[in-house]
Amino acid sequence: MSADYIHHLQCVLCDARYNPAEVTYTCPTCGPSGVLEVHYNYEQISQHISRATLAEDHDLTFWRYRALLPISYSHGDRPALSIGGTPLYSVNRLRTYLGLRDLWLKDDSRNPSASLKDRASIIAVMRAEGKTVACASTGNAASSLAVQAAAVGLPCYIFVPHNAPRAKIVQLLMCGAIVFAVKGSYDDAFDLCIEACNTFGWYNRNTGYNPYLVEGKKTVGLEIAEQLDWQIPDSVLVPTGDGCIISGVYRGFEDLYRLGMIERIPRMIAVQAEGSPAIVRALEGDGIVRPFPAQTVADGISVGLPRNGAMAVKVIRESGGFGITISDEEILAAEKELARLTGVFSPVERR
Amino acid sequence: MSADYIHHLQCVLCDARYNPAEVTYTCPTCGPSGVLEVHYNYEQISQHISRATLAEDHDLTFWRYRALLPISYSHGDRPALSIGGTPLYSVNRLRTYLGLRDLWLKDDSRNPSASLKDRASIIAVMRAEGKTVACASTGNAASSLAVQAAAVGLPCYIFVPHNAPRAKIVQLLMCGAIVFAVKGSYDDAFDLCIEACNTFGWYNRNTGYNPYLVEGKKTVGLEIAEQLDWQIPDSVLVPTGDGCIISGVYRGFEDLYRLGMIERIPRMIAVQAEGSPAIVRALEGDGIVRPFPAQTVADGISVGLPRNGAMAVKVIRESGGFGITISDEEILAAEKELARLTGVFSPVERR
Repeated sequence: MSADYIHHLQCVLCDARYNPAEVTYTCPTCGPSGVLEVHYNYEQISQHISRATLAEDHDLTFWRYRALLPISYSHGDRPALSIGGTPLYSVNRLRTYLGLRDLWLKDDSRNPSASLKDRASIIAVMRAEGKTVACASTGNAASSLAVQAAAVGLPCYIFVPHNAPRAKIVQLLMCGAIVFAVKGSYDDAFDLCIEACNTFGWYNRNTGYNPYLVEGKKTVGLEIAEQLDWQIPDSVLVPTGDGCIISGVYRGFEDLYRLGMIERIPRMIAVQAEGSPAIVRALEGDGIVRPFPAQTVADGISVGLPRNGAMAVKVIRESGGFGITISDEEILAAEKELARLTGVFSPVERR
Repeated sequence: MSADYIHHLQCVLCDARYNPAEVTYTCPTCGPSGVLEVHYNYEQISQHISRATLAEDHDLTFWRYRALLPISYSHGDRPALSIGGTPLYSVNRLRTYLGLRDLWLKDDSRNPSASLKDRASIIAVMRAEGKTVACASTGNAASSLAVQAAAVGLPCYIFVPHNAPRAKIVQLLMCGAIVFAVKGSYDDAFDLCIEACNTFGWYNRNTGYNPYLVEGKKTVGLEIAEQLDWQIPDSVLVPTGDGCIISGVYRGFEDLYRLGMIERIPRMIAVQAEGSPAIVRALEGDGIVRPFPAQTVADGISVGLPRNGAMAVKVIRESGGFGITISDEEILAAEKELARLTGVFSPVERR
């Protein structure tokens, strides 16, 4: 799919620039860790999007931001499922309990497959243009891709470690996905998925590999800014595993800043589990993300080798932000406090 | 809470009319089966709501219809959680597969606690005005009330049969609800909840008892009409257990019809499990709903004694509709077809 307003792709490691027609996934020089950032021609985009055009638009889904997405602006077909437009809550009871002056909660479980991953999967499904889509995941990314592929009738292949939880696999199969149980770890499944995509011409939906998926995730940042009526918060805290979501949130604010729609970018704060601290360690050290064995109850952010770690470190530092780690005990206590004080029930994913 | 535009309440069995200030729940003459219908002063309401006012309103939640709800119109506080405004999908793949000319799917799992019950619970929470709220349920109604009570900090008591599934009870407890495990059936829990509410002055959120909750459910009908741009469908099919949801959907269309905003009301078609057919039997017989032992895999519509059966039969007949039953085999097959052809994953609730 042509994306009208992309200027170039740039490697997060070596800064090499590429024409999007030349490269499909990562930097040819740096390999799989050389994730590419998408850079736009904001002058062209500014003809389609402004505070005023948004105020007139009754479509509250991610589609309202399509001028800023790596899809063709003239693409006529609205997505089959309703993605984004999730609520931003002023959680007064939790705010008072924590003694904060201001606190908001973005509830992205209100997406079609119940997670933020839908914002990335829709980009993959739209860019696949009828091709088979594939990803490696045991969790939300897999559910999300399977659901969205079913909605439009794309063949969908999911690579999971052979010991992945049965209940999750059942959902994938119900949605008509073909599931490969790989004898090996998640990393083996990830590598096999890349190889299969390259061999068979399937479209690869792995966020820390395909440059365009973080662009889908940025819509959550765009929404936060707009829902706060362009009053930018001091800080945005993001649960962080492979670094894709926090990079996406930053990218949303960055776009608005470059378009002159907001005056500053908030501090990005990565929140990692003590048992999966690779990005926080890099932030507190030399900035280089090194693999670190991961073990935490919070399955969704349990990542030994953060696939988008370099981009996460870069954007967190650019925003003036930092990282913190919290214990499994604190995570489980927060799960209860969140439900009890906000009504948002967001159980920690467990394998 | 005063609800500005209510004209009177009317018993679904004996047609007796009551002033809402006189009666809190069911008909004093007919007892618990004499569920009351809410009748409005539509002339007053029409000053606040029309196709034109709705077209201007960017709030897509149920709140846009508050002039038609049993809450004070001048009520300033928006609800803490974002309820309603769920997508209506043109499910093209499923439509083609079924050989239909037109087919739409309302995905009400996109509510805060993942079910339509949120539309009723918000009415209970708003009308409770700070009082403790209570209900009897093992399923979606309980989750919904617990979540919404937590969001605003109301004490919440849930009555469940002692053999209710542990996972559901855990969610209720996480949200801070107090759960009473009743040694007995669901019907025993229901009766005990009514008695406890009357004794302790708690506000009763049981849909086939409290007249105002069906009014919350009607917002799904209001949304369908508006999302179809006021082109009213021929038929609306509703999975039916106790009869509250189908009554609510009808009530939404009825309101719009009385306001002159639509030209007709669609046929209401009740879809029940073969193993829980009480309302369909009444529709095919003398119209009187009699208890019938229920057993089906579809827990959410497994109801031996439909608490709102009389209202359901009345509105289905008034709409020119009817009822059908389907086997558990068909239900389980449809669960898969829905996921595979629409991407909407709506697993049958199982105890």
